[in-house]
Amino acid sequence: MSLIANTPKPPYYAVIFSNHLNDDTAGYTEMAERMVELASQQKGFLGVESAREELGITVSYWSDLESIKNWKANAEHQQAQQLGHEKWYASFKTRISKVERDYGI
Amino acid sequence: MSLIANTPKPPYYAVIFSNHLNDDTAGYTEMAERMVELASQQKGFLGVESAREELGITVSYWSDLESIKNWKANAEHQQAQQLGHEKWYASFKTRISKVERDYGI
Repeated sequence: MSLIANTPKPPYYAVIFSNHLNDDTAGYTEMAERMVELASQQKGFLGVESAREELGITVSYWSDLESIKNWKANAEHQQAQQLGHEKWYASFKTRISKVERDYGI
Repeated sequence: MSLIANTPKPPYYAVIFSNHLNDDTAGYTEMAERMVELASQQKGFLGVESAREELGITVSYWSDLESIKNWKANAEHQQAQQLGHEKWYASFKTRISKVERDYGI
């Protein structure tokens, strides 16, 4: 099975979330898995890709900016974001981008 | 040291390269490192972030589409791309996107 998201023809949106975890990651993996499950139920969700070494990168794909805004404002996601800021992330950067072109094999 | 790229204020561009490697990865790591070194010398290069588990994700950041086009056409990079297609990548997807907004800690 490919872990590469099966996104539609552009344009669509990518949220690139790059992060470093703190040493204490208790509860993080369960929350991250729950957020993927919850995100995938949202309107406009197109897919997600994730990898972590020293740096973690999660890219989620969305049909439009409104869907991204709604997901950011989702109540359960808000709680997770707060825990992330307070507890899990040493640093992070979120980038909202519009995919204009894609290709692959 | 943070591995999160220190990108300027948007807008700028992100090339999201998601890939699965074949079993035989001989020579891949050296080439990947050389390509990061070479990319960072190109006009318009702003930074790169990378992580790999089962899936590999490399996001490179660029000031404009022209710089991305020039990097894709770079002779040494072209050789690497050809080797990648023939030998290393079981599958990949490249997405060219325009970063419209970013935030972080």
